[in-house]
Amino acid sequence: MSIASSLTSATLCGASVFPKALACSSEFPINLPSPFESSKICLTSFPASRDLKKNATLNLTRNVGPVRCHAMQAGTRELKKFELSDVIEGKQFDREMLSAIFDVAREMEKIEKSSSQSEILKGYLMATLFYEPSTRTRLSFESAMKRLGGEVLTTENAREFSSAAKGETLEDTIRTVEGYSDIIVMRHFESGAARKAAATANIPVINAGDGPGEHPTQALLDVYTIQSEIGKLDGISVALVGDLANGRTVRSLAYLLAKFKDVKIYFVSPEIVKMKDDIKDYLTSSGVEWEESSDLMEVASKCDVVYQTRIQRERFGERLDLYEAARGKYIVDKDLLGVMQKKAIIMHPLPRLDEITADVDADPRAAYFRQAKNGLFIRMALLKLLLVGW
Amino acid sequence: MSIASSLTSATLCGASVFPKALACSSEFPINLPSPFESSKICLTSFPASRDLKKNATLNLTRNVGPVRCHAMQAGTRELKKFELSDVIEGKQFDREMLSAIFDVAREMEKIEKSSSQSEILKGYLMATLFYEPSTRTRLSFESAMKRLGGEVLTTENAREFSSAAKGETLEDTIRTVEGYSDIIVMRHFESGAARKAAATANIPVINAGDGPGEHPTQALLDVYTIQSEIGKLDGISVALVGDLANGRTVRSLAYLLAKFKDVKIYFVSPEIVKMKDDIKDYLTSSGVEWEESSDLMEVASKCDVVYQTRIQRERFGERLDLYEAARGKYIVDKDLLGVMQKKAIIMHPLPRLDEITADVDADPRAAYFRQAKNGLFIRMALLKLLLVGW
Amino acid sequence: MSIASSLTSATLCGASVFPKALACSSEFPINLPSPFESSKICLTSFPASRDLKKNATLNLTRNVGPVRCHAMQAGTRELKKFELSDVIEGKQFDREMLSAIFDVAREMEKIEKSSSQSEILKGYLMATLFYEPSTRTRLSFESAMKRLGGEVLTTENAREFSSAAKGETLEDTIRTVEGYSDIIVMRHFESGAARKAAATANIPVINAGDGPGEHPTQALLDVYTIQSEIGKLDGISVALVGDLANGRTVRSLAYLLAKFKDVKIYFVSPEIVKMKDDIKDYLTSSGVEWEESSDLMEVASKCDVVYQTRIQRERFGERLDLYEAARGKYIVDKDLLGVMQKKAIIMHPLPRLDEITADVDADPRAAYFRQAKNGLFIRMALLKLLLVGW
Repeated sequence: MSIASSLTSATLCGASVFPKALACSSEFPINLPSPFESSKICLTSFPASRDLKKNATLNLTRNVGPVRCHAMQAGTRELKKFELSDVIEGKQFDREMLSAIFDVAREMEKIEKSSSQSEILKGYLMATLFYEPSTRTRLSFESAMKRLGGEVLTTENAREFSSAAKGETLEDTIRTVEGYSDIIVMRHFESGAARKAAATANIPVINAGDGPGEHPTQALLDVYTIQSEIGKLDGISVALVGDLANGRTVRSLAYLLAKFKDVKIYFVSPEIVKMKDDIKDYLTSSGVEWEESSDLMEVASKCDVVYQTRIQRERFGERLDLYEAARGKYIVDKDLLGVMQKKAIIMHPLPRLDEITADVDADPRAAYFRQAKNGLFIRMALLKLLLVGW
Repeated sequence: MSIASSLTSATLCGASVFPKALACSSEFPINLPSPFESSKICLTSFPASRDLKKNATLNLTRNVGPVRCHAMQAGTRELKKFELSDVIEGKQFDREMLSAIFDVAREMEKIEKSSSQSEILKGYLMATLFYEPSTRTRLSFESAMKRLGGEVLTTENAREFSSAAKGETLEDTIRTVEGYSDIIVMRHFESGAARKAAATANIPVINAGDGPGEHPTQALLDVYTIQSEIGKLDGISVALVGDLANGRTVRSLAYLLAKFKDVKIYFVSPEIVKMKDDIKDYLTSSGVEWEESSDLMEVASKCDVVYQTRIQRERFGERLDLYEAARGKYIVDKDLLGVMQKKAIIMHPLPRLDEITADVDADPRAAYFRQAKNGLFIRMALLKLLLVGW
Repeated sequence: MSIASSLTSATLCGASVFPKALACSSEFPINLPSPFESSKICLTSFPASRDLKKNATLNLTRNVGPVRCHAMQAGTRELKKFELSDVIEGKQFDREMLSAIFDVAREMEKIEKSSSQSEILKGYLMATLFYEPSTRTRLSFESAMKRLGGEVLTTENAREFSSAAKGETLEDTIRTVEGYSDIIVMRHFESGAARKAAATANIPVINAGDGPGEHPTQALLDVYTIQSEIGKLDGISVALVGDLANGRTVRSLAYLLAKFKDVKIYFVSPEIVKMKDDIKDYLTSSGVEWEESSDLMEVASKCDVVYQTRIQRERFGERLDLYEAARGKYIVDKDLLGVMQKKAIIMHPLPRLDEITADVDADPRAAYFRQAKNGLFIRMALLKLLLVGW
């Protein structure tokens, strides 16, 4: 395709400076009356080949290959499959999308266990751009990429990158790094950084945590774990325990669970770190039943999931007395196991300190290391979807 | 294989919470009267496929593949080949095992020199979990893995990992990392850390140095270098020179040499860092002849190997005067070369400062860079043995 | 080939302790009257297979494969192709060599855009030995290696390597690392370090910047960018703007441009950081027309290239007032675009602060991100040439 004709296509598709971000944002209208009315939507970030995703703005691509515009697929299910151009926040996933991603994650479990090396992402290069260290998350993404035959460029301490050190903007860094890779996995200390990166990049961006903001792949793996372990997401009871005020994971999980039917949520936390009103209001407005309790034993006896979290010492500053009081209050131990249902599970985003005692680990209901492993499958699924599609 | 049947097999094999560690520890009785009496031994950590090594405890593997139990091989030689489930300390290797590993290392030399890429470890993923930096050792392991077609997840500074930073136990870190990789190479600042990791992990662990404790791959490459260069291990004379009190490598080497016949060891060191009694007693009880000498020229003239080491400044604290006195005392230089035998060699674990002068490097007897290279072959051999077997 | 015969060949070729460095230095005479008179030149660092490049000195290779000596090619063009054994400084490249490298870089553009994975460097291992951080340069090299199917050993902070930390010499570090890899890409804080490394190494070394010294791959990508964007290098006008006193890139660029015909160079900089006399004298003696100007608008209106650079704050110490005065003086903005020619381009080595305003980015003449991308193609080309030849 010549540059001239690709530009024409791009125009037909409503491409502007950042076609991917504009056309494929989370506000994207998914229930279109007819696929043919939506011809302005350019799904440029769904690459069928490596060429395809290098569909940058004019000044970035004078000598670069074609910008292609996928014809709209008939049927909303097919359509929705194409929406995934970046992974920025939990909010962007609806129930149907979650289900579709989980199907792929299950395929990934098989691939990971297989003795032969997958080549699904052979020739693809992922850049891990970590502005703050998070070895656990980084290893999980890098393992996911390599299990699928892809390659990785690692930046463990991107804060020392020219950007922070010399005053370069995040946008400039992204424009450089996208020239060297096919997908960017970014961890940043500032809320909103991932969205900014995705708006700049002409390759997919995955948010691996941006400050106090979002950590969508953690949210997905949590929901996936419940689905895998309990077998369903509708009609479940979940206890969120521990630091509910500062815990990004429990907030995101509550948010995503609201997309399912007949979910009941219990909040069990020291007063000082109790769940904030925004999530409570959101649950109420979504028709999700919730209640606060100070009796973990009683709650645990009737839940499918006890989701324990670490009280984050770093949030207490010099008030170590308050921290010590809070951290010892709700412990998951053998006694708690004793009252829990046979098919219930205990989850934890890890790392844990002593909020779950070590003697719980051997119980089949201790799901937290399987949960960590599920992070691998979810990330494999997302990498596959963003790089080679469904 | 269903979960039920795999559990049955595991029980037959005496598997418990950590089947690999229990069944395959270094206390493992190697001279069994008959292979059929040892049917309780589960060689679960000898994987024939990637599936196989994911043979974790029940709570880790609810959805995971089969736990297989190898039928016992007839004959102790065959049996012993199967023992290698982790590499934790020099002590775990006997003479016959060393010989078998060296055979594999020699094959590895051929593979490394070949112009075609080996795919022996294709699809396998090694995690280098380094709690203290050791670029030399890390590069050597990562090169070994990649020369065999395997892939690597790198953690150069695992101390910043959640474990140390947030109080996670080593066991929890290992349980997470083993979900992302097929083998863990760990460097740690605490003695015994590798053994602890191996007891937790359901994948093989290699100790790449744990504090003042063990550094078994260095010990193996030292013995391998003597074998390769001198052509034998029985009947050799070895001078251990320099910092014998703190030098982990010379202590391990002395220990391993005691497994061979008619070995004579000379200790040549400043008084302040002389070899400790534990090793001397061990040598004596093993029937190894040793003596202390302050005349390096005289000793060097009759040895097959002069093993020089660096006086470690960091051990002297503020007593720099003592350090300066110690470090200049025994130098390997052209004069020493003059009295050494034609087929003798000079070894050094590196890095060296000026305890070997640079003009020695060009002499064919300067074996230290070849010794460093042998580390690659030994590590290739161990990775191969632990991941795909003999 | 036996060791004896390989030594004979080596001698015939004039090989000594460091055959590669001696035989293939940048002083290498390129216009030989006849290829047959130059039989003393040993092109040992041009490997046709992995074996070949392990052509070390005797003490390093007792057990290692053959040292081969290529017969001289007939014709100077063919001859010159073989010169590239290391990449140390801009000076080593003449006009014809640049043209040949650019041809390969253009092939690399096609390979990078292709959807299938190149295997040109499959089985090769690059060690990135960075004694100071430079994420941008490191990622670019690692991406280049991986785009060609090669593998990478990363050392982001080699200063913590034994070398600096324990007093090992650079030469010893290089001798160790060359045992683990096939090519070394080194960034160092000391001028001349790359040359020293190349003199020691028996594998190719690429200088990725040595202190205030050289950064030859940046110089090559700058010239390549002008060639690609403007279509020629003879007869062009180039404005070098900003920090000309400390800017390594503009100094190297001026140097390389002097190899082409009818080039005109304008220096536009605050007085405090103006171009030094050595480059001016060199240009004059090379017959290159140059002039200094304080009128960026006027200069930009007649140039093919406006090469903007960052004023480096770190050079001003505590004189922040001088820094502030200097940095605001010459800005590339929309107004400047207004006077620039239609086919002219704006370049910048990045990172940029506000010396180019963000609203310039969307203009097709803003070439700086394409320039950064060209770094990938140049590095792919050099890796290919050094490892598998033309």
